[in-house]
Amino acid sequence: MNYPEVKVLENVKAVLKAIEGRSYKRVYLIACGGSSALMYPSQFLIDTKVRNLTCEYLNSNEFIYRNSPAVNEEAIVILCSQEGKTPETVAAAKYAREKGATVITIAMLDDTPLQKEGEFFVKYGYYETADPIDTSYGVMYLLTAGILQAQEGLEIFDDMVRNLENLKPVVENAKKQYQDATEYYGKSCREDRVLYSLASGCNYSQSYVFCNCYMMEMQWINAIPIHAGEFFHGPFEIIEKNSPVIMLMGLDQTRFMEERALRFLEKYTDRIFRIDMKDVDFMDVDEDYRGYLGALVINNICRMFSKAIAKEREHSLDIRRYMHLVEY
Amino acid sequence: MNYPEVKVLENVKAVLKAIEGRSYKRVYLIACGGSSALMYPSQFLIDTKVRNLTCEYLNSNEFIYRNSPAVNEEAIVILCSQEGKTPETVAAAKYAREKGATVITIAMLDDTPLQKEGEFFVKYGYYETADPIDTSYGVMYLLTAGILQAQEGLEIFDDMVRNLENLKPVVENAKKQYQDATEYYGKSCREDRVLYSLASGCNYSQSYVFCNCYMMEMQWINAIPIHAGEFFHGPFEIIEKNSPVIMLMGLDQTRFMEERALRFLEKYTDRIFRIDMKDVDFMDVDEDYRGYLGALVINNICRMFSKAIAKEREHSLDIRRYMHLVEY
Repeated sequence: MNYPEVKVLENVKAVLKAIEGRSYKRVYLIACGGSSALMYPSQFLIDTKVRNLTCEYLNSNEFIYRNSPAVNEEAIVILCSQEGKTPETVAAAKYAREKGATVITIAMLDDTPLQKEGEFFVKYGYYETADPIDTSYGVMYLLTAGILQAQEGLEIFDDMVRNLENLKPVVENAKKQYQDATEYYGKSCREDRVLYSLASGCNYSQSYVFCNCYMMEMQWINAIPIHAGEFFHGPFEIIEKNSPVIMLMGLDQTRFMEERALRFLEKYTDRIFRIDMKDVDFMDVDEDYRGYLGALVINNICRMFSKAIAKEREHSLDIRRYMHLVEY
Repeated sequence: MNYPEVKVLENVKAVLKAIEGRSYKRVYLIACGGSSALMYPSQFLIDTKVRNLTCEYLNSNEFIYRNSPAVNEEAIVILCSQEGKTPETVAAAKYAREKGATVITIAMLDDTPLQKEGEFFVKYGYYETADPIDTSYGVMYLLTAGILQAQEGLEIFDDMVRNLENLKPVVENAKKQYQDATEYYGKSCREDRVLYSLASGCNYSQSYVFCNCYMMEMQWINAIPIHAGEFFHGPFEIIEKNSPVIMLMGLDQTRFMEERALRFLEKYTDRIFRIDMKDVDFMDVDEDYRGYLGALVINNICRMFSKAIAKEREHSLDIRRYMHLVEY
């Protein structure tokens, strides 16, 4: 599929301008699957910055059926669906609008059912060709930084813009840097029936999407996303000498948990596939944005890793047996 | 281990009385592993009832390292650790106290490090011998119902007490009712290397604890908890004719998602192990409490299922290779 070039900044600014005078108690980030995972870093951003505003992060149908009284005119709901037609997310937008919430939708295509249900819309670019700031992750960080600025009086929007703009060469270099490693990882995992992926903080979203989408959905390989802090309270008992673990290491303030998990894993398995933002040169990205924006870099590396596994197994990432093929 | 009989109601009432005049913006439910999972239904309760208060649900170290500015005198933090000594949870209590939050700790033992870090403490009873109202789940529902009543003006505390009290014969009968089925399930899963468990709403907590604690930790069997709504956005592609799925069906307002997952699974796998609250007689439990309290019933059945698997595999639920045995 060919996606046109998209520049999001003016669009995002126009949305933020339009809601400038409104006051909110809650932000809801609502989507399904991969579109949900890409919102999680923004939940993390809000949670680490706020005193008043809160951020809820829910699957679209869970959001509808919970039917919280807090979904009202004091709520702002952001919903994402890549092609703008995920039925649950379209229904969630309609539901939120009926409850009086401000509804912003984001998608990669114009004129979709999702867009029709929202008050505002931002189109984002395709992750492989767009600059980081113009991807879904970029749009989410821009929107939430703008909302934080308006609602909490934090001066962070311009910094977020500058840092997202400065991320482009970082991602490009990181991809080159991890080319050989991801090919090696792909070969190594060729015969595995079960993979594990650990992370904490905003990077947990990448364990989630790697396992649920890139592996379970696109490779039919069992893959278990494990929060690096929860690991020691149950899941670590499964680890054996040959357990394959994709260890995601970010730079946010929760890195301690990832390091702790890594130290344990280094003793008890020989098969750690480590994607570590400490090894990446973040160049002109400010120190205190590297944690947040690292999630985008990790996403790119995880996708390369998935492609490498797919190639080794001769199982295209596009093959499905149920999705969009049978009724469900 | 022998635990003394505990009656929690007067203790909970005393705590609620002591905080009566205080005003909160946020409730934090903080723990690790199984102690975290048992708090999730209370997060669901709050989320489905509130207009103003919000409820955050986080792993103990994630809570500390996120270091949200919202952890302050306007926050009430409830922390749980069965034996009151989980280091991360003890540290989280200390952290929350230092930030000025109201800190309530709950545990099964008196005079623990966790209790020492909190302002208030409630001791709960052992799940196998205590009445439902006196278990960890009971204490959590009582505390959160009391907080909801004080902060949101909802008259629900007495109803919660009455319904929890009425749950005792329901659990007893449900256990008898599922005795044969769980033994059969245990036999059926004897050779499986990977299990899946699905649920939504407050029952998702039971998929989580079943997979992470009862299976990964206590049986060294791979087990993947999948939110029934997220299932269709990736994970369902893994399902084959012989995939073993523990389908948890509750009575809360998200049941639609569980039913949808069940309909799909009935077509594509022959191995569904269904634990369904619709088949359980809730007797004198009010209709609108059956969803919330069903999580406690499901927990009891999941534990029976675990015991049945353990027996079949001759792998005691108490065997560990790392937990409390090596440094980590």
